[in-house]
Amino acid sequence: MLLSPKRINIKTGNKYIAVLSENTALKLDLRAGDRIKVTNDCGEKKEITCILDVSERHFSDKTIGLFWETYEKISCEKNKKVYIEIAQKPLSTAYIRKKLDGARLSDQEIDEIIKDVVEDDFSDVEMTYFVAGCYTQGLNDRETTALTRAIVKHGSKLVFKNKIVIDKHCIGGVPGNRTTMIAVPILTALGLTMPKTSSRAITSPAGTADTMEVFCNVTNDAERLKEIVKKANGFISWGGGVDLAAADDYMIRVRHPISLDPEGMLLASIMAKKHSVSANHVLIDIPLGYDTKIQTQKEAEHLKKRFLNIGKMLGMKMKIILTDGNQPIGNGIGPLLEALDVLKVLKNKPDAPKDLKEKGILMAGILLELTGKSKKGQGSILARETLESGKAWKQMQKIIELQGAKRMPKPAHFSVPIPAKKSGTVKKIDNKIISRIARLAGAPKANQAGLYLYKKVGDHVKKGEWLMKLYAVRPERLKYAIQFALNNPAYEI
Amino acid sequence: MLLSPKRINIKTGNKYIAVLSENTALKLDLRAGDRIKVTNDCGEKKEITCILDVSERHFSDKTIGLFWETYEKISCEKNKKVYIEIAQKPLSTAYIRKKLDGARLSDQEIDEIIKDVVEDDFSDVEMTYFVAGCYTQGLNDRETTALTRAIVKHGSKLVFKNKIVIDKHCIGGVPGNRTTMIAVPILTALGLTMPKTSSRAITSPAGTADTMEVFCNVTNDAERLKEIVKKANGFISWGGGVDLAAADDYMIRVRHPISLDPEGMLLASIMAKKHSVSANHVLIDIPLGYDTKIQTQKEAEHLKKRFLNIGKMLGMKMKIILTDGNQPIGNGIGPLLEALDVLKVLKNKPDAPKDLKEKGILMAGILLELTGKSKKGQGSILARETLESGKAWKQMQKIIELQGAKRMPKPAHFSVPIPAKKSGTVKKIDNKIISRIARLAGAPKANQAGLYLYKKVGDHVKKGEWLMKLYAVRPERLKYAIQFALNNPAYEI
Repeated sequence: MLLSPKRINIKTGNKYIAVLSENTALKLDLRAGDRIKVTNDCGEKKEITCILDVSERHFSDKTIGLFWETYEKISCEKNKKVYIEIAQKPLSTAYIRKKLDGARLSDQEIDEIIKDVVEDDFSDVEMTYFVAGCYTQGLNDRETTALTRAIVKHGSKLVFKNKIVIDKHCIGGVPGNRTTMIAVPILTALGLTMPKTSSRAITSPAGTADTMEVFCNVTNDAERLKEIVKKANGFISWGGGVDLAAADDYMIRVRHPISLDPEGMLLASIMAKKHSVSANHVLIDIPLGYDTKIQTQKEAEHLKKRFLNIGKMLGMKMKIILTDGNQPIGNGIGPLLEALDVLKVLKNKPDAPKDLKEKGILMAGILLELTGKSKKGQGSILARETLESGKAWKQMQKIIELQGAKRMPKPAHFSVPIPAKKSGTVKKIDNKIISRIARLAGAPKANQAGLYLYKKVGDHVKKGEWLMKLYAVRPERLKYAIQFALNNPAYEI
Repeated sequence: MLLSPKRINIKTGNKYIAVLSENTALKLDLRAGDRIKVTNDCGEKKEITCILDVSERHFSDKTIGLFWETYEKISCEKNKKVYIEIAQKPLSTAYIRKKLDGARLSDQEIDEIIKDVVEDDFSDVEMTYFVAGCYTQGLNDRETTALTRAIVKHGSKLVFKNKIVIDKHCIGGVPGNRTTMIAVPILTALGLTMPKTSSRAITSPAGTADTMEVFCNVTNDAERLKEIVKKANGFISWGGGVDLAAADDYMIRVRHPISLDPEGMLLASIMAKKHSVSANHVLIDIPLGYDTKIQTQKEAEHLKKRFLNIGKMLGMKMKIILTDGNQPIGNGIGPLLEALDVLKVLKNKPDAPKDLKEKGILMAGILLELTGKSKKGQGSILARETLESGKAWKQMQKIIELQGAKRMPKPAHFSVPIPAKKSGTVKKIDNKIISRIARLAGAPKANQAGLYLYKKVGDHVKKGEWLMKLYAVRPERLKYAIQFALNNPAYEI
């Protein structure tokens, strides 16, 4: 069938979508969500497979509406008709169906699905069925490994020839937990390769990428990152800037509406990020607390077992540690305030937060032992020495320079302290409330905003002493944050 | 936030969709699939909740794109800004999540979900999760009954005061199976109320609605249908014309892309159609054959048990029969050719297809006994008498007149017989191949197209004798159909 193309001036983000009138769709026995092949014979023949949308009115029966990308891709001309025919569904829709039916998928089937995800061959409805299938029927370790491999295969990869490439990951939920920024300079100062891609905050007041961004640029392409590794053995850069696990981002789009985290996808997503930077020695930190992502020892042990199994299949040496997640790490919460904590630790200031320093040393030490750089039981000693001698700080300055140093902002102009209402010992600090206050104050978008904790669990506090101080760049933001903080006490004394 | 509305000239079919630029979405911490409330204060305040789409470029940061329905609904004016705020997700998304987690949903939760489906409060992604949840975790009889009630509640209903209202349904897969058109005139001639809504063909060469449409109009609104029932006790009309189980149509849209039929939804869909016309005496026909929808005795018995349970909860007297589905019923396949078979049966012509006649009598007889109109064992006798006396034909003419009689078309101009390649006894006729040939010939869209079967299972055939004859309105269609028929023998001799 020949139809006149009509450009719809909306960018859909790579997805190719065409719109037909109800009549034309009926004539071709097509429904919304079906696929059509659109061909434009303009000297050289250009073809594209689109997902069909059906419009109730507006389009004439002789017209096909093409969204921006589609129109551009086949170089339509206004007065030249395009040819339409029915296209087959990708084979992989059958595999999605199979997963919903509870079957195990083969490595090839999973690879095919991820290829189609990345090439945008699925409609959102089809992709949703895949996520729902993985959620309700589960992915076993073999399938999760296949999913990890497929995500890495159909995305960019950073290849390093070094025998040892290290990485770490933390299963979030604990504010201020910036150990990466302590461990990376220690380990790279000792000659180990650690190409660390980090994420930005989604629901927290700061991600490692947001905090590193206070010091320097964190959006670097693969080529630049490889150069930095050559010169400094590592970096701390934003993962989203390198397109390392693209398939993941596609799937997150349909996971977001009902916040669905299929365990197998979560594991594959973490492992793919490590695998895509060629990491073969990986430390996973699972903070355990009453309001962290993982809340019970049992869940943590289950994940640990899965990580080790999948790591083995991928040829990774892994160590999984369970850490205390019952209160924030460090004192600052929010990009700048967390960055200041990191600086204090690296510069060996007397007021450096002890918990952040010790956790950073612990993590670095474990990785030193895992890679054989230190003997068993000696890792922490070498890590501490590297930090306290100033080598780590020198190394961090080198990395910051290479990534493109920035002038650090000043602390936020508006601040207000929250004093204790009674005397006693701090029993508990609620991670979720702390995160919420910092976000209400403007973090992470306003990178100077957030809060500073003066007291941690176990500290004695007198009535009227400051528990924390809130920072915001705009007074109304400060008002929101104070209001919430007063109605929702983060401290239990 | 105040933004300038920009109309996008596409009708989305009731779904309210708004588009923001990536920057604006980021500023509001929103992602595609989130909900926003758009308010237009134009004298009277108009509000609407939209699903958000995010466009990569094209939209300025101060603009909001509104699809046709959205723009119209809140009566935007070109130069007047609209107010945007973040809206909450419907509560029922939590119930969808619950179903995916394997929980049983309460009647109230199911009702809430269906209300949101009908009010278009879900995005396609959310609705897909609901279907996937029902498919993988199942709906038990209580949930299926609740789903049936909710579909009926949130749609139109035909209420009849009669104590007895009858209906029937066939779980498809057998071409030519037009028993409804024999049973309705018999039963309504005997004074029983039978408001029969039927479907059009989706993957078959003809549905009952398509076949009835050869005789008369089948798109009637509720008021007209009630009038017809007053005058003739029943009708045979297209269900889609009355909007009886609207929620069903919404859900079918997301079931279509991977052809997912969650059993509970299938049952609820059938039962809702019966319940919405006030039917309380219902016969379900499950044809069993090697290529019918239901293929094993076990599956059929399982469905039978579920139908009876759900029927009981809905206060329906039900009878479920398993019939032979190993070959087509009647001789004609395609709307006109099937209609001609029905005519022959109603007019008691000597060449009327015996199987169609007998199955029609059987069905009518069972319903006569189920309603108590006939004593046990006497139903078929009364049904046969009503048919053979010509009363049913007279009644059918009355119904056709009331629905709006049409001039019947002539048989299709182009036809070609398919002769037997060898002599023997017909062992099997493949339903799927027969359907495919008739559809390739143009059925159901070309209502004169299709095929006529000269031989049925058990018949003796000599080499060269006609097995069937293909009919098409366009010669190229006939060519397609012949080609397929020659490559895929429908008859096993």
